[in-house]
Amino acid sequence: MIWAERVLERPLELLSDHAHCELRAASSAQGLITRNPSMAGLVDSLSRLALEELKHFRQVIALLEEFGGELLWAEPNPYVEGLINGTKSTRGAALLDRLLISGLVELRSLERFDMLADAATDPKVKALYAELGPSEAGHATLFSRLAEDVFPAELVEKRAAELCEIEGSVVAGLEFAPRMHSGVAKEHPAS
Amino acid sequence: MIWAERVLERPLELLSDHAHCELRAASSAQGLITRNPSMAGLVDSLSRLALEELKHFRQVIALLEEFGGELLWAEPNPYVEGLINGTKSTRGAALLDRLLISGLVELRSLERFDMLADAATDPKVKALYAELGPSEAGHATLFSRLAEDVFPAELVEKRAAELCEIEGSVVAGLEFAPRMHSGVAKEHPAS
Repeated sequence: MIWAERVLERPLELLSDHAHCELRAASSAQGLITRNPSMAGLVDSLSRLALEELKHFRQVIALLEEFGGELLWAEPNPYVEGLINGTKSTRGAALLDRLLISGLVELRSLERFDMLADAATDPKVKALYAELGPSEAGHATLFSRLAEDVFPAELVEKRAAELCEIEGSVVAGLEFAPRMHSGVAKEHPAS
Repeated sequence: MIWAERVLERPLELLSDHAHCELRAASSAQGLITRNPSMAGLVDSLSRLALEELKHFRQVIALLEEFGGELLWAEPNPYVEGLINGTKSTRGAALLDRLLISGLVELRSLERFDMLADAATDPKVKALYAELGPSEAGHATLFSRLAEDVFPAELVEKRAAELCEIEGSVVAGLEFAPRMHSGVAKEHPAS
């Protein structure tokens, strides 16, 4: 059983986790604005992004409630935390790392949304993930563009490559859970 | 010279401070959602409020940039910090205090917006504060309603009265600055 089918067996937990991802993405963008107030382009584009993430949060919550669920306590996100912790020791520019990590998370979320849209049998879940995908793709591009606006292309490329390696080891350690960025389990355990 | 006239002499600093107030209000609402996920009414209304605050942030930033300014580093907000610190020692329910403080801040912001709309000579500044006022009034009502939904009316009333006293001593200690919640200086000093 593929990851998406397995996650979709527990839609209330998935949607709650997804809602928290949207809320965290908004907060993270707002934090970047607070720490980089004089970068007008960043302030403009990340405040627009935060608005979109909050709208998505509300869409996800609405579906969650329609299914009789509620927002649960936020669980840790070992994928995102792994990326942040994994880049700390070699960090050059904190802003560059944060932009690259944010772009990567958007990209991986897009992949997960695509898998969920494909695998979902509930038409509302299918529609949600089909609808939100393109927006994540736009966000990933935005973070790349912001990084390239501020840092030399060679540095961005070099750090992105390093980040890909770090991501590889983070992903290898992820376990399955009914959450957006959980490990991809190819086999469904007996219980 | 009244407070509003004096603040309006430094519109770029005022608008930057105001933008940070909107951003902080959004973040504060998002924090309340994260800490109270199972309260569906709160999650719904505060996520809508956060959306509005972010829209206001973008409106304020747009005007700031039109005037040739940019978002400055956020300054501390002694008014809000004074309320939070002043309620710590006597805190009963942290959620109640946070809702009451948020409501009070919205109410004081509304008063400031009204003063600014009255005193502004620049038509765009006047229009901004006239437009944003009603929304702050709605937010103040929302926080009161949320407090009353969760806590007994008597407790809400008692704590609101205590908070008013705490606010009195906070406000008495505020100095003038070109910021939204600064002290009201009736006299304009010589320099």
